[in-house]
Amino acid sequence: MKYETIRWKNDRLEVIDQRLLPGKTRYAACFTDGDVVRAIKAMAVRGAPAIGIAAAYGVYLGVRKSRARGFRSFKKELERTMKRLAASRPTARDLFWALERVDELVKKNKGMPVGELKSMVLYEAHAILDEDRRRCRAIGREGKALIAKGSNILTHCNAGGLATGGYGTALGVIFAAGKKVRRVYVDETRPVMQGARLTVWELSKANIPATLICDNMAASLMAKNEVDAVMVGADRIAANGDVANKIGTYNLAVLAHYHKVPFYVAAPRSTFDLSVADGGAIPIEERSPLEVKKMGGEYVTLKDVDVRNPAFDITPAKLITAIITERGVIRRPDRRKIAKLVGG
Amino acid sequence: MKYETIRWKNDRLEVIDQRLLPGKTRYAACFTDGDVVRAIKAMAVRGAPAIGIAAAYGVYLGVRKSRARGFRSFKKELERTMKRLAASRPTARDLFWALERVDELVKKNKGMPVGELKSMVLYEAHAILDEDRRRCRAIGREGKALIAKGSNILTHCNAGGLATGGYGTALGVIFAAGKKVRRVYVDETRPVMQGARLTVWELSKANIPATLICDNMAASLMAKNEVDAVMVGADRIAANGDVANKIGTYNLAVLAHYHKVPFYVAAPRSTFDLSVADGGAIPIEERSPLEVKKMGGEYVTLKDVDVRNPAFDITPAKLITAIITERGVIRRPDRRKIAKLVGG
Repeated sequence: MKYETIRWKNDRLEVIDQRLLPGKTRYAACFTDGDVVRAIKAMAVRGAPAIGIAAAYGVYLGVRKSRARGFRSFKKELERTMKRLAASRPTARDLFWALERVDELVKKNKGMPVGELKSMVLYEAHAILDEDRRRCRAIGREGKALIAKGSNILTHCNAGGLATGGYGTALGVIFAAGKKVRRVYVDETRPVMQGARLTVWELSKANIPATLICDNMAASLMAKNEVDAVMVGADRIAANGDVANKIGTYNLAVLAHYHKVPFYVAAPRSTFDLSVADGGAIPIEERSPLEVKKMGGEYVTLKDVDVRNPAFDITPAKLITAIITERGVIRRPDRRKIAKLVGG
Repeated sequence: MKYETIRWKNDRLEVIDQRLLPGKTRYAACFTDGDVVRAIKAMAVRGAPAIGIAAAYGVYLGVRKSRARGFRSFKKELERTMKRLAASRPTARDLFWALERVDELVKKNKGMPVGELKSMVLYEAHAILDEDRRRCRAIGREGKALIAKGSNILTHCNAGGLATGGYGTALGVIFAAGKKVRRVYVDETRPVMQGARLTVWELSKANIPATLICDNMAASLMAKNEVDAVMVGADRIAANGDVANKIGTYNLAVLAHYHKVPFYVAAPRSTFDLSVADGGAIPIEERSPLEVKKMGGEYVTLKDVDVRNPAFDITPAKLITAIITERGVIRRPDRRKIAKLVGG
């Protein structure tokens, strides 16, 4: 593990407050499910797998003080908590996956006393965190074969230890590829700057040469053959292989296609949503215009200008060279291959 | 004219200090050629045509106090001044075009007394400014036929009145198209934010509906058929039609090609450089990494991270639907068509 993005300590959930990076490494403490909702909404914790883990702990924080005596009233409180958590952000599949997993577990154990159910929820959150770390290592092992020696890899946003339990998906592959990677080009990733703030920080800690660029520079690097592969994470993957990921990912996929650069997506099975036929049905969060209008607290444009700020975009499966999961690599992803590897 | 981006007033050159927009509209005064060089380098004045105009005045400011009595010594001072101005920024063709034009004029009039040569240089600068305004209007007239009624147009950087003598090239076409334009999507244009700061301000003044987006959002708008045309300016156009323009332009050209969206470049003849065979030979300025690393005076990334900051990129002619000049529209630009319209 690279660092503890999320940890359970002194009977509370602690998350590295990613809004303060790279300037300060400080943990934000969550004592209630409301604290977790706020941390997710404000992106103190972000990245699909990390959101899922935080939400699982959030369920425990929401019910741990429950005075319910019977299963039905406990279940009601649990559902209220889950509803609150589910409403924090709409796109990342892992959030709903984690909630469903906790829900299933409780349903399966409805005979248990409430006190034991509470403990069970906490241990399930621990399990989700622990599994994430192993899954990310597995993604790294599966993916590193795709990286040729001496490669320059372009990545977008942050799909590293900070977006997961501590190792990363897209960056997990890069960490696992190690010395084979010559340089990582990091898209700064407007408007929240996860690339500039988080990915640069992670690569620096891992001693991997990194070069920061603005998102609009990728095309000119590709035209000069300076990019050998694009490697990104995912927030939700539809049954047909369409990928929702940080806004700007689709942009890179089109550029990679045009320049014949391989385009890889690294994500655990919990990011797949087989109930969604294709990318068109994935809900895309529209965030506050202030993220675009302000920089360092100051307006950089007219205060009343109209703004679009979708947090994600959809990359169609046909533009994806391969999806790297903890169970193996899906080349030229389609419905059949995904169902085979991810389903069941 | 929309506004006086550049004006000669009280015996000095005044330029709207574009670093302060949209917060403050304030003129920066230039008393010497050194002041003009600094204003261009710091991007207080920017945009290829505007740089050319400012440089022409800069030549006058550089020689107006000359004590040379004969042509040869005057010519030497003139050349020193021109060399300083030519070194301010390397990519915009209009800078060199304006300097060459003044140089030609002086050479042609070598018999004149030095005092008259000085006045002649000043009047040439006035003429260049005045012609720019007429040229931009002509570009608008030529280009507006390309805009279908109800169009959403995407633009990048600022190719408006602020980039020229006061009307604009790409924005000139949009101004001329008037009510035919439903909405302009404005790329914020990292890292210097000319779109967010300048283009949004100009469109607001002209009462044209504008929506600000981050540069990485254009692809997803195109995928949803929300962009009917891309319209940009140019800093230099090679003999074969390859275009150097603000970094991110090539990115848009690839996206437009993929989504079958027409991609237009609007530029005066002074932006063409027939001495340059293709885009590969156009020098691309690399600017300070601090433009990328800092926002509102604060570092948003690690201080010592490696950064790439090319100010321009090259869009190959094959991705350009048409180039709009004051002499007419060059559809599917190539060497022959360009030589015919621009040369001679």
